[in-house]
Amino acid sequence: MSAVIRILGVDPGSAATGWGVVDMAGARLSYVASGVIRPKKGAAHAEKLSVIFEGLQAVIADYDPGEAAVEETFVNASPRDALVLGQARGVALLAPGQAGLAVAEYAANSVKKSVVGKGHADKAQVAAMVKVLLPKCGELASDEADALAVAICHAHHYGMRKLEAS
Amino acid sequence: MSAVIRILGVDPGSAATGWGVVDMAGARLSYVASGVIRPKKGAAHAEKLSVIFEGLQAVIADYDPGEAAVEETFVNASPRDALVLGQARGVALLAPGQAGLAVAEYAANSVKKSVVGKGHADKAQVAAMVKVLLPKCGELASDEADALAVAICHAHHYGMRKLEAS
Repeated sequence: MSAVIRILGVDPGSAATGWGVVDMAGARLSYVASGVIRPKKGAAHAEKLSVIFEGLQAVIADYDPGEAAVEETFVNASPRDALVLGQARGVALLAPGQAGLAVAEYAANSVKKSVVGKGHADKAQVAAMVKVLLPKCGELASDEADALAVAICHAHHYGMRKLEAS
Repeated sequence: MSAVIRILGVDPGSAATGWGVVDMAGARLSYVASGVIRPKKGAAHAEKLSVIFEGLQAVIADYDPGEAAVEETFVNASPRDALVLGQARGVALLAPGQAGLAVAEYAANSVKKSVVGKGHADKAQVAAMVKVLLPKCGELASDEADALAVAICHAHHYGMRKLEAS
């Protein structure tokens, strides 16, 4: 029997940061939990970032993942929007790092390719495939589905690393 | 006699994050300490961000500032560079926030205007004025001078808020 590896996926954003936790036992994936952290609109940057950081700290404390993966958002934004997104992303990378987890980063296209099979899948296709791969996930907000997709992508890469190493 | 307000200024960057601590007693400013946090080149994002976060936590623990201010860097960068800068900035906003400090943000132009008197001063002019205003600061790296300039800017705004309130 293979050991279970628990993976936290994060889709960071200033308004909404999705998170999803998946267990991998060999090639089998199963849904554990997911959610969205939404700081108050109009709060100062530092306050929003604290809400995201503490939210992720609570998820890590509650579910005790062994690995973490964060989406490397495709930057099609203005420099100002990219800066604000980067702030949320910094905190999303920091929280698992501070908890002693290795943090992998995957480009949005890799995540889509890993989950749907093509790099230019749209959000609905990603969400539909997440539901097929993790049938117990129930109804998902879009940021939750994206976070679970990152966790699935990491699981696939993890499996490949194991095969390469064996 | 006025109470002393200790201000931490931060100039965040992925390669180098400058910090500076200044005491304000009424209209009098004095230099306390400053430095630059430089994560290892080529380290993963999450690792660099941990170095910046822990570096700022150590500065806050050592000097116990009462207020913090972070430069809102003028974004003249590509979206990708802005994202990476944003990650460092997110952590620079988070560290004092997590320590319970109020965190002010100032645009680079406000900082320059506050220190040099004009919004389009160059780095050398800012550094020269920081040395005039804080004669005990000694030789400064450019990121240190910028961080001290943010602290000075906050002190000026703080003084003005007090005048308006009185």
